[in-house]
Amino acid sequence: MRVAIDAMGGDNAPEAIVQGALRALGEDPDLELVLVGVPAELRGLGPDGERVRVVASGPAIPEGAPPARSLLRQPDASVAVTMRLLAAGEADAAVTFGNTGAALVSAVHEVGLLPGVTRCTVGEALFAFAPERLILDLGPSVDVRPAHLVAFARLGCAYLQAFAGVERPRVGILSNGGEVGKGNQVVKEATALLAASDLMFVGPVEGHELVQDRADVIVCDGFVGNVLVKFCEGLAAVLDHHWRRETGRPTPATSPWANFRAIEQRGAALLGVRRPVVLGHGRAGADEAAGVVRHAARLLRGGFQQRLEEAVRERWRDPEGADEGDPEVAAAGR
Amino acid sequence: MRVAIDAMGGDNAPEAIVQGALRALGEDPDLELVLVGVPAELRGLGPDGERVRVVASGPAIPEGAPPARSLLRQPDASVAVTMRLLAAGEADAAVTFGNTGAALVSAVHEVGLLPGVTRCTVGEALFAFAPERLILDLGPSVDVRPAHLVAFARLGCAYLQAFAGVERPRVGILSNGGEVGKGNQVVKEATALLAASDLMFVGPVEGHELVQDRADVIVCDGFVGNVLVKFCEGLAAVLDHHWRRETGRPTPATSPWANFRAIEQRGAALLGVRRPVVLGHGRAGADEAAGVVRHAARLLRGGFQQRLEEAVRERWRDPEGADEGDPEVAAAGR
Repeated sequence: MRVAIDAMGGDNAPEAIVQGALRALGEDPDLELVLVGVPAELRGLGPDGERVRVVASGPAIPEGAPPARSLLRQPDASVAVTMRLLAAGEADAAVTFGNTGAALVSAVHEVGLLPGVTRCTVGEALFAFAPERLILDLGPSVDVRPAHLVAFARLGCAYLQAFAGVERPRVGILSNGGEVGKGNQVVKEATALLAASDLMFVGPVEGHELVQDRADVIVCDGFVGNVLVKFCEGLAAVLDHHWRRETGRPTPATSPWANFRAIEQRGAALLGVRRPVVLGHGRAGADEAAGVVRHAARLLRGGFQQRLEEAVRERWRDPEGADEGDPEVAAAGR
Repeated sequence: MRVAIDAMGGDNAPEAIVQGALRALGEDPDLELVLVGVPAELRGLGPDGERVRVVASGPAIPEGAPPARSLLRQPDASVAVTMRLLAAGEADAAVTFGNTGAALVSAVHEVGLLPGVTRCTVGEALFAFAPERLILDLGPSVDVRPAHLVAFARLGCAYLQAFAGVERPRVGILSNGGEVGKGNQVVKEATALLAASDLMFVGPVEGHELVQDRADVIVCDGFVGNVLVKFCEGLAAVLDHHWRRETGRPTPATSPWANFRAIEQRGAALLGVRRPVVLGHGRAGADEAAGVVRHAARLLRGGFQQRLEEAVRERWRDPEGADEGDPEVAAAGR
C-alpha cells in the first residue's frame, strides 16, 4: 500500500506531517510512503528509508488562497503533485493537510469524479454511539445548490451501503423546523427534490434530532456542517476537561463525545473521486498526521474505493444533472 | 407587572400553558396575568382568580403556516390579540409559545421596532461558563442579508451593555474558517460591513471557537443559530443521561452543558421591539411555560426594556439602512 503525502500543507508542515507519517510507517510493515514536498525543506527530517520515496514539488497552496487560481499559477504545488501521483497509479491513496479547497479542486481535476457524481463531499459520523449516522457535507461545499444536497445524499447512502451494509439508508435534511415552510431557501428546494427522488427520504431533521435515530444520512451545506463538526471538536475539549476535573479519570471511550474529534484524529475521506483521498485537519500535529495516514491504510485494506464504486454504480439512478462542466473549479475558485 | 400570555400557541396549548402560567402566578405576588385565548377552550382550566384576566381571541396561527398571510386572514389570532394588548399598554410584557414567525410579524406590526432598528432578533448565551457570550440570531431570521447581521451585532452589543455592563463588546461572525475567502456569500459580505463599522469587530469565529473567549457577541443567520441551539438542547439530554449513568448523580449546575436548555426552560427575549416580548419553545410543557413567565417577570423587574432602549439610543450610530418598509412581514410571510 503506497500512500502519497502532501508534506507541505497544514499549519505544522512539513515537520509534524513527516514525523507523523514516519511513525505510521514504523507501525505498519505493509505501508510505503511517497513524501511530496520541497526537497530542501524535507532534507533533515529523516525521510530516507527503504519504504520511503521522496518526490520533489513546489510549496503548498497557502490557507485562504483561492484554490483554482492558485493551482493554475502554481502547477507544481505540493497538493497538485500528490494528486498527479495518485492519478498516475504511483500511489494507492493520497493524504493532504493543506488548503481544503485546493485539495478538492486538485483531486477533481487530476483524479476525476466517479461516473454520475457531480460534486464530491466529506462526511463523518459525529457520535461514537451512532457510528452509522453520517452527516455531510462537513466543509468543502460551502455554498450549495439544492441538487448538490441530493448528490451528497446519494454519496452518503453509497458509503453506508458499502461500509456498514445498510441496505436502504434513511435520508434526512438538516433544518430549523419540522413543519412545511421551515428551512432556508436552499433547504426548502432540496426538500422537494429529495421527496421526489428514489431515495428513502424521511424529511427534515432538526438540531436536537441529530442525537436521535431519525435518519442514517443527514445532508447539509458545508458551512453549517463545518460549524457543527468544529463545535463538536471544541466541545469535546471542554467536556474532557470537565470530566477529568469531576471524576479524576480520562474520558471513557463510551462517552457521547468520544467521537467528536474523529476528524481531527483521522481525517475524513473525500467521497466521489475516482481514487482514495483523505483530508487531514489543517491544525494536525504529528499525532494527528500519524492517525490520518493510518486511516488511509485502513481504507485501502477495507477496499474503500472498490466498495464505494460498486455502491454508486449499483444504486445510482439519476444524477439530477446538478452541474455541467467542472463546477468544483468554478465554485471553489471564487 | 402584567404579563399577557398567548394561551393558544404551542404544541401543548392551552392546558400546559395555562397550568404553567398559573404556577408562576402562585409564586409571585407582584404578578398579574392576562390570558388570551378561545373562551370555550380556556374554561375549565381554572384561569379565574383575582390577578387573572381572560381576554377572548380566536385560535392560534398553526405551526408552519405562513405568518403574514395567516395574520391577515385571522386578525383575531391569539398572538395578534396578545401583542395588541401589549401595544395598548394593557400588559407590560407578552409571552407566546406559538408559530415564531407569526409572533415576530405580529410583534413588529402591533408593537413596532425600536428607532434605528431594522430587524429584531433573538439571542442567548449558550454556555453557563460564559453567560456573557451572546449568540444571535437563533431562529427568527432564517434567510438574512449581510446588513441584517450587522444589525444583530448592534442589538447584541446593546443587550450586553445594558445587562452585563460590557462597555465595548467584541463582535465576531460565525464562519467556517479564519482565513480571508472563507465564509458563505452572506458571511463574506457581512464581514466587510462589520470591519468597516464602528463596532469592535474581531473577525470570524469558527465552530470550535464558540467555547473560547474570542468575542462577546457572535452573529450568524437564524438557520445556523437554530441548528446550533437545538443541537445543544439535544446534546444536553444525552450528556445528562450519560452523567447520571456514570456517576449516579444528576448533572451539576457547573457542568458545561447546564445552560444548553436555557431557551427551552425560560424562552428568549425578542431584541429590537418597543416593548418586552418573550418567545417560549413550541414544545413547552407546564414546567417550561412557568419558566418562561418567570423569565418575563425577571426581565420586567430588571428594567429590560428601558435599559435596552438606552443602550440602543446611546450607542446606535448608523443603522446601515438595512431595510425599507416592513421587511419582517415580507420575509416571514414567504
